[in-house]
Amino acid sequence: MLKILISLVFVQAFAAQEKLISADLLKNSKAKDWRRIEQENLLYFKLPEGMVLIELAPFIARAHVARVKSLAREKFWDGLVIARVQDGYVVQWMDPKADKSDRKKFTGMNEALPPEFEAPQEFIKEEFTPLKDKDTYADQTGFIGGFAAGQDDKEKMAWLLHCYGAVGVGRDNAPKSGNGTELYAVIGGNPRPLDRNVAIIGKVVKGMEFLASLPRGHGEMGFYDKEQDEKPIKIPSIRLGTDVPEDERVVLEMLRTDTPLFKKWIEARRNREEEWFVRKAGKIDACNLSVPVRDAKEKK
Amino acid sequence: MLKILISLVFVQAFAAQEKLISADLLKNSKAKDWRRIEQENLLYFKLPEGMVLIELAPFIARAHVARVKSLAREKFWDGLVIARVQDGYVVQWMDPKADKSDRKKFTGMNEALPPEFEAPQEFIKEEFTPLKDKDTYADQTGFIGGFAAGQDDKEKMAWLLHCYGAVGVGRDNAPKSGNGTELYAVIGGNPRPLDRNVAIIGKVVKGMEFLASLPRGHGEMGFYDKEQDEKPIKIPSIRLGTDVPEDERVVLEMLRTDTPLFKKWIEARRNREEEWFVRKAGKIDACNLSVPVRDAKEKK
Repeated sequence: MLKILISLVFVQAFAAQEKLISADLLKNSKAKDWRRIEQENLLYFKLPEGMVLIELAPFIARAHVARVKSLAREKFWDGLVIARVQDGYVVQWMDPKADKSDRKKFTGMNEALPPEFEAPQEFIKEEFTPLKDKDTYADQTGFIGGFAAGQDDKEKMAWLLHCYGAVGVGRDNAPKSGNGTELYAVIGGNPRPLDRNVAIIGKVVKGMEFLASLPRGHGEMGFYDKEQDEKPIKIPSIRLGTDVPEDERVVLEMLRTDTPLFKKWIEARRNREEEWFVRKAGKIDACNLSVPVRDAKEKK
Repeated sequence: MLKILISLVFVQAFAAQEKLISADLLKNSKAKDWRRIEQENLLYFKLPEGMVLIELAPFIARAHVARVKSLAREKFWDGLVIARVQDGYVVQWMDPKADKSDRKKFTGMNEALPPEFEAPQEFIKEEFTPLKDKDTYADQTGFIGGFAAGQDDKEKMAWLLHCYGAVGVGRDNAPKSGNGTELYAVIGGNPRPLDRNVAIIGKVVKGMEFLASLPRGHGEMGFYDKEQDEKPIKIPSIRLGTDVPEDERVVLEMLRTDTPLFKKWIEARRNREEEWFVRKAGKIDACNLSVPVRDAKEKK
């Protein structure tokens, strides 16, 4: 018995000093550490250069996500354009000549969307996995269902962060002016001052390079300009996964962010044990904490 | 006299409530609020798509900057390649087949460069303009000579930050293994965990889009792969401004970061007064605080 106890003590002492290396954690992960990305939350954004896949996050901007799904089902964006590519900031796609009468044929377009830039914490069922390090903008940051999120202590609200790859819904000056037809993706930096000002609906989980390497627009704010730019790039199609033929679907898994393994993942990223690092940061901010995505091993 | 005093009080009260808007600050800026970017610190990195201009920051990684200048003067990179483009991270250019005997013809290549990942604060003559908001990684952040920088309270060191557009010198695992021949630029996110691990030598001040929109490599870590990628992009030339014919020089000015105007600029970016913002962050991190660059009004 004593022997077993001693061994246990040794095992624990060893575990405390265990060097957590990201690559090893992934290699030793189990199937239960991953979650399937549901086709009903996956947007297939086809570009001439390749396919961009966006996972929708329905737990904060619910009405926005519902609207975007319905617009995708009705093929709203097919044949529209990438209207804006501002270096170090965002790519935006929309109908630059939208007139309201034409839009009215799409479901729900007469109802203004609520300003879902954040949501009360109590309304979110998904677990919030906190980070222990301080953040410039939020009282608390962490992850909800795979997405980088912030929380405040006083107002008890939660929101998604403007990290590289985040996808949101553009709006005019009025908070209630976003109708889901103008979408943008962050292609540089992590423009966190936008947090709580716009509805984030998801993030790019594959094909980010096809958005980030688009030619920049030379008009104001990176809009394509008739005189200075080539013709804006036309969008062949945007579809919801459930409308994509089964044999063309991409089946992906994301590392779950509510597991013991993810807590180790956080530590591995806070202190990079790889030999190259001469100074471990000992800290991590949510935008630098990548959540791995992989092709599903079993497609069904 | 009383009248004047009262006016002064009014003026001050008004000033305290003044809405600081970035665009107005720039419009009303004076010539003395800007500094000329010196040609001896400006790298002209020619790519087939366009010219990338990098301002070198000689006040931290002194030996690295001197080496890079000397390599540019000796045309080290001409005809070499972009070897790596990793989405959301870095572009790297170098000699992928470098062999030491061939490199020895370049000045100084027998001397290992010191690990100038940071420098003692007391050795830096340039003013440090601090930000008041907390940062995940550094005790203190701010700006030195136009560059986003960090400081620590205990070791009294200063370093440049890995923000979008930062340019550094690649190295192997040994801290003293960077020789100035492999350079990288940050093209996504703000990979701050790299801070104090690599020598940052400057930042892109113009033409960032030509680096950020390069096709991504499909090998490990974004290296171009013989099987999966087109041929790596060849570099026509990299030159120091002083070696560029006068009529081909680009004359730029950067907003000074050690002025009363810059303090207002910081406030304008902490609290965006533009009508679009429904929630002002009330905070700013150094990587989100862009330092404006403009074409010089007088070229001489």
